Amino acid sequence: MLEITRLSTTQPDFPEALRRLVDWEAADAHRVQEVAAGILADVRKRGDAAVLEYGARFDRLHVDSVRELEIDHAALKSAFDSLPADQREALQVAADRVRAYAERQKVESFSFEEADGTRLGQKVEPLDRVGIYVPGGKAAYPSSVLMNAVPAAVAGVSEIIMMVPAPDGQLAPMVLAAAYLGGVTRAFRIGGAQAVAALAYGTETVPAVDKIVGPGNAYVAEAKRQVFGVVGIDMIAGPSEILVVCDGHTDPEWIAMDLFSQAEHDEDAQAILVCPDPMYLDQVQQAMERLLPGMERSDIIRTSLARRGALICTRDLTEAVDVVNTVAPEHLELSVAEPEKMADSVRHAGAIFLGRHTAEVLGDYVAGPDHVLPTSRTARFASPLGVYDFQKRTSLIQCSPAGAAALGRHASVLARTEGLTAHARSAEYRVEASGRG
Amino acid sequence: MLEITRLSTTQPDFPEALRRLVDWEAADAHRVQEVAAGILADVRKRGDAAVLEYGARFDRLHVDSVRELEIDHAALKSAFDSLPADQREALQVAADRVRAYAERQKVESFSFEEADGTRLGQKVEPLDRVGIYVPGGKAAYPSSVLMNAVPAAVAGVSEIIMMVPAPDGQLAPMVLAAAYLGGVTRAFRIGGAQAVAALAYGTETVPAVDKIVGPGNAYVAEAKRQVFGVVGIDMIAGPSEILVVCDGHTDPEWIAMDLFSQAEHDEDAQAILVCPDPMYLDQVQQAMERLLPGMERSDIIRTSLARRGALICTRDLTEAVDVVNTVAPEHLELSVAEPEKMADSVRHAGAIFLGRHTAEVLGDYVAGPDHVLPTSRTARFASPLGVYDFQKRTSLIQCSPAGAAALGRHASVLARTEGLTAHARSAEYRVEASGRG
Repeated sequence: MLEITRLSTTQPDFPEALRRLVDWEAADAHRVQEVAAGILADVRKRGDAAVLEYGARFDRLHVDSVRELEIDHAALKSAFDSLPADQREALQVAADRVRAYAERQKVESFSFEEADGTRLGQKVEPLDRVGIYVPGGKAAYPSSVLMNAVPAAVAGVSEIIMMVPAPDGQLAPMVLAAAYLGGVTRAFRIGGAQAVAALAYGTETVPAVDKIVGPGNAYVAEAKRQVFGVVGIDMIAGPSEILVVCDGHTDPEWIAMDLFSQAEHDEDAQAILVCPDPMYLDQVQQAMERLLPGMERSDIIRTSLARRGALICTRDLTEAVDVVNTVAPEHLELSVAEPEKMADSVRHAGAIFLGRHTAEVLGDYVAGPDHVLPTSRTARFASPLGVYDFQKRTSLIQCSPAGAAALGRHASVLARTEGLTAHARSAEYRVEASGRG
Repeated sequence: MLEITRLSTTQPDFPEALRRLVDWEAADAHRVQEVAAGILADVRKRGDAAVLEYGARFDRLHVDSVRELEIDHAALKSAFDSLPADQREALQVAADRVRAYAERQKVESFSFEEADGTRLGQKVEPLDRVGIYVPGGKAAYPSSVLMNAVPAAVAGVSEIIMMVPAPDGQLAPMVLAAAYLGGVTRAFRIGGAQAVAALAYGTETVPAVDKIVGPGNAYVAEAKRQVFGVVGIDMIAGPSEILVVCDGHTDPEWIAMDLFSQAEHDEDAQAILVCPDPMYLDQVQQAMERLLPGMERSDIIRTSLARRGALICTRDLTEAVDVVNTVAPEHLELSVAEPEKMADSVRHAGAIFLGRHTAEVLGDYVAGPDHVLPTSRTARFASPLGVYDFQKRTSLIQCSPAGAAALGRHASVLARTEGLTAHARSAEYRVEASGRG
């Protein structure tokens, strides 16, 4: 038997039940905070020596210097060259498509001139140096390398430093190959909060970066939160989620497998199906029971479905969209007859997969849009990782003498209402200059 | 005598001296962390009751309900209508110019179709509800209301909730007038970490928002850091800074006053002048000594110049730009003959003010670009507050059956290298469907 929560929008406590379902707070948040803070302070103080100790402790990596943890750039290329043809091709297609999509996200500088000759503008530039964190551990994810590195490369970042945990020193050749294709300039076998610390503060060997992106475990996420301000960060990632809305006319095995593909990530991953047809929910549940024994990661799938999965019955598809907007899912699959119309009424989601053929997994690897997406309801305010995360803006203001005089009059009035006399005087000098001119 | 640090790039320890000058870390960071965490937890648990208690304790505001802390929307309009004509005009000009500039920053949705009918896109939408924090306390800043609210309104945010501390219940009419002009939909006389908590978690009276923006004191900044993830935040603001590069040919009094205008903000504000001419640095210092006694906020100016101000002599203007790129200043004034050329080589700054007539103060109030800018070297990775801070993106992926089959083949290969069989099977269903079709 497969255990999974069943909810219905007709039950009186549905809003609370839904909120409980999607609420996610790490069980031992306080401990994670303290551990992360300790590692950060230690690496900040002792640099390489601390990084080495944590690598030995957490990844059983015993080396004499952080330099030995750096992966030679030539090794990246040779890893790519040694891949079987189908893997090389798949990786290349993925990189090309991610790059092509990212190119469309580039933010451009602008400037314009006003009648009195005053010019205003905004200069957009790439960051100098960024760190990308790539999860390793239970599974190495070459796709994550591409999804983090490519938008940085497209933005024009000149130094892209990859940190990837290598338990017992092991790293999948695909991860190195992806780093080569993605434009990574330096790579280290360093993971956990110590990787975030090294990137944020710099060590004797690891250069300090300007921004750290990429998802990691709870310690990595907490470390990123704590260094925010010293460096930029992209977001604080929680467990991965999918919400599938189905009208009841997709092959139930497809939907069952789509839910599995999320649930197999880890025990905290969340897979939710929303459908107005209770019979169809039964069919999908039966398909899951039938298919589960054949899955390699059936234990993880079973646990995550039992813990956080749900089959939700709504009165109609309109109500299904209400559920979507409350959940603000990371991944949203619209397995319905008219997905475009439904997508228009979706207010909050990281990525929307439209139509029965658009399995979420296509977006994980090759569709093009980034797979680093806002989790845990943060799609209410956050966006997919993109080129814009690796660009920054500077405002440009160039007043003509006439413009400075005209603006200076108003600035002086406002400054004086705020009690800031030096502000007012600074503006008035330019007003007086114009009177003399 | 006016006390201010003098540095020269020719001194052997210049890099370390410069780093010490610009490094800023709150003296009692740990205490601030604990106090903020306590207030957040309390407001989260007890809602309105906690907000009322902190208001009584910190702002001496004794009322019976949070509803009494809400400012009636009609009061905003009547505050605007009651302003003297010059203030009303100045505020209107500022609002209009900030709005016109913000309009140019809007990010637009895009989508495109590939040869096999697959469509990709990115949908850009405004956030639903945002909170803006407006500093009050020592001085009420109507300009900050505009600079926070207007970009949100331009983005299309439908609910803009303003929090402003009102010590002893006092609020400047200009602040209310600016809220009216800026498009604030609700306003509360609540400040400090409790304002951030109320916005992040919601209370019986204050609705929870999706993002909190705007600078505040150290407690507000720390509270924002701690709620990041529950809601979005813009940045963590440190003290305000200006760096002026001058070629030695601007009236020394103008530059002295421009430095004062930064220093008068508060005792931690930073004002730095960089110039290749040591005689000119002397002239500016003499001008400062002459002008200081006439300033209303001379004590604050004197303290902040002594603590954090500096006059830096460089070998030439090229070296001055190197100093700029190390400091990554919030405000950068280029008081030189060819400011455009110099601006091109500036890599990091929040806003650049080009030319002798473009006093930084013009940007504080009326030029148009936002005055909420990245401080404390964060211009290396962060941008001015803008419309883009109130918009979010959702990726759109709609595969045609042929596209799903083609992409599915590669996705399956990559999924299997990552050991994710359910991912692979989910893709393969769509490949098989195409084979059958």
